[in-house]
Amino acid sequence: MQPKTNIVHLPVYQPGKPVEDVKRELGLSEVIKMASNENPYGFSESAKAAVIEELSYTNIYPDGASVELTAKLADKLGVQTNQIIFGSGSSEVILMAARAFLAPGDETIMADETFAQYKHNAEIENARIIEVPLKNGKHDLPAMLAKVTSRTKIVWICNPNNPTGTIVSHEELTAFLNAVPSHVLVVLDEAYGEYVKDAAYSDGVRMLPSYRNLLVLRTFSKIFGLASLRIGYGIGHPDVVRFINQVREPFNTTRAAQAAARASLSDDAFVARCSDENHKGIQYLTAQFDRLGLSYFEAHGNFVMVDAKRPSSEVFAAMLRRGVIVRANWTYYPTYIRVSVGTPEQNEAFIEALEQVLQEVTV
Amino acid sequence: MQPKTNIVHLPVYQPGKPVEDVKRELGLSEVIKMASNENPYGFSESAKAAVIEELSYTNIYPDGASVELTAKLADKLGVQTNQIIFGSGSSEVILMAARAFLAPGDETIMADETFAQYKHNAEIENARIIEVPLKNGKHDLPAMLAKVTSRTKIVWICNPNNPTGTIVSHEELTAFLNAVPSHVLVVLDEAYGEYVKDAAYSDGVRMLPSYRNLLVLRTFSKIFGLASLRIGYGIGHPDVVRFINQVREPFNTTRAAQAAARASLSDDAFVARCSDENHKGIQYLTAQFDRLGLSYFEAHGNFVMVDAKRPSSEVFAAMLRRGVIVRANWTYYPTYIRVSVGTPEQNEAFIEALEQVLQEVTV
Repeated sequence: MQPKTNIVHLPVYQPGKPVEDVKRELGLSEVIKMASNENPYGFSESAKAAVIEELSYTNIYPDGASVELTAKLADKLGVQTNQIIFGSGSSEVILMAARAFLAPGDETIMADETFAQYKHNAEIENARIIEVPLKNGKHDLPAMLAKVTSRTKIVWICNPNNPTGTIVSHEELTAFLNAVPSHVLVVLDEAYGEYVKDAAYSDGVRMLPSYRNLLVLRTFSKIFGLASLRIGYGIGHPDVVRFINQVREPFNTTRAAQAAARASLSDDAFVARCSDENHKGIQYLTAQFDRLGLSYFEAHGNFVMVDAKRPSSEVFAAMLRRGVIVRANWTYYPTYIRVSVGTPEQNEAFIEALEQVLQEVTV
Repeated sequence: MQPKTNIVHLPVYQPGKPVEDVKRELGLSEVIKMASNENPYGFSESAKAAVIEELSYTNIYPDGASVELTAKLADKLGVQTNQIIFGSGSSEVILMAARAFLAPGDETIMADETFAQYKHNAEIENARIIEVPLKNGKHDLPAMLAKVTSRTKIVWICNPNNPTGTIVSHEELTAFLNAVPSHVLVVLDEAYGEYVKDAAYSDGVRMLPSYRNLLVLRTFSKIFGLASLRIGYGIGHPDVVRFINQVREPFNTTRAAQAAARASLSDDAFVARCSDENHKGIQYLTAQFDRLGLSYFEAHGNFVMVDAKRPSSEVFAAMLRRGVIVRANWTYYPTYIRVSVGTPEQNEAFIEALEQVLQEVTV
């Protein structure tokens, strides 16, 4: 038997290296993972209690439509319930959008260095992928707009962008959305949106009334700290949501995830604390990079992309030997590493290791 | 923006009606759900403890490759680890198989009344669907074989079949697999396999060494009682598994699900007890149907498909008013209802309600 020819040679996703693997492989007792943009402060205590309570219903299928969670989120966001669709992480919403909108040969536009799942899913659908170079680590919206044709189905904008951490401003985004033809679905991925403190940042949800071809993605995996439970969502025009819902699996999110998300939405204090701590972490890390003479992209998420001025695979390996896991091997930024913001102690340990590595690995 | 034209008019999956909805809509205090083939005995206590322990890592992404769980399951099944792929329920393995193997215009063969997700996913991939009528509620393998062409990519066999509960025998299956061309992937869905007590039943995993084009599906949603956690798996030749893995989402199962599944695999006593209780339930229900003069399909799963000899939508509604949720409205069996095996008390309450309904709803 033969699968679709276009899926045979797809690269397999490379996740951040698990702590246990590194401990085992290198014989280390202390390992810090700053590779997957996880929340170093855990998650809301109330979410934990909600999951444990929900365990009584483990044998019963979840509510596929996430009715209760949808109502709570709609209320919080000030949208209608038929504007929201949940996924097993926002990555499943990416999958569903691709599966609903991309037929073989359709065109889809994305940055050349951005979240890998846009391209991966477009490749599975055998769509024609147009990658537009980032400009100083930032989405080049005018260049992306120039690539739009009558065959363009989806444009993907990651804001803040993963892995560079940059944002496009509200003004830039508005200009793009005003100019892009209405037959194009614009997927605005705000997975790291809750971390952004820059006043120029756009709130995609507030732009929805003006653009019915806009789909905003958000997640509970990052600032809410529910990465392991897999829950994220899309917000858009009811028509867009209805189309995506056509390809949703009947039970695509778990009871545990729905319960944790509901509880998390009520814990504003946890989110505020994580956002503030993250901001301090960014300030600390970038100040240290300045001291070390390293340049970096303006960081708006919970990670910093810094130029180590050395082959990043070597820096990665040297950091690993010191028990610090980061991310490297970016196609277009071969000397950059991406480090997730940790606790103050983790950030200091990272900087200490980095200073040693910069001595060890030659430019 | 326009989605793929073939997904616009897909029917939305109709899950079993939730208990809370029925209580609210009909003002009932006691409602029994016998509609979704869930395990009425809950799930393993050790799985509960495992999930609670795993909650400490909620903010950390799960192991996308499910390494620990895969090793444990491979050992239990006597297969290699590269023969197993996990999904968010076996329904996600169905999705992945369809997405990996079906291109627009490819042909795929299935029974006309079987688990809805084969057709649903084939429709999303814009494949050509060939539905072969069941014969006395059973897969008609010779008729399915006769429909195979050079364009056939996947044949789906649900064994026991949902919703009819019938099985094809080891002999029938072997004859089919010996005759089907090697370019055809045969997906053998054994979601209810652990319930089967009939000696004629085939264990798909034991057939794998002989047929590299066979993919067996199993789930933790049924006898293991983990429906809400969404975890199931496929077992096949390493090539088939590798192809399907190409389209797997990086983190498609949760930490909670993996932990619960690992623990459940060690609790053979729970599974044995549920299987025995289910068997007694089948015997009770079918004896009652005999008494009531109702015919039914030979039931090998944890549900019985019985001919109420009345329009099933009316029977469904009348049962609902008495607080018993069943499934009805099968395209090819308009007078049949499907009832999941419950606890002895639930089974008795179901029969009591059914007797009243048979009086109330005229033939």
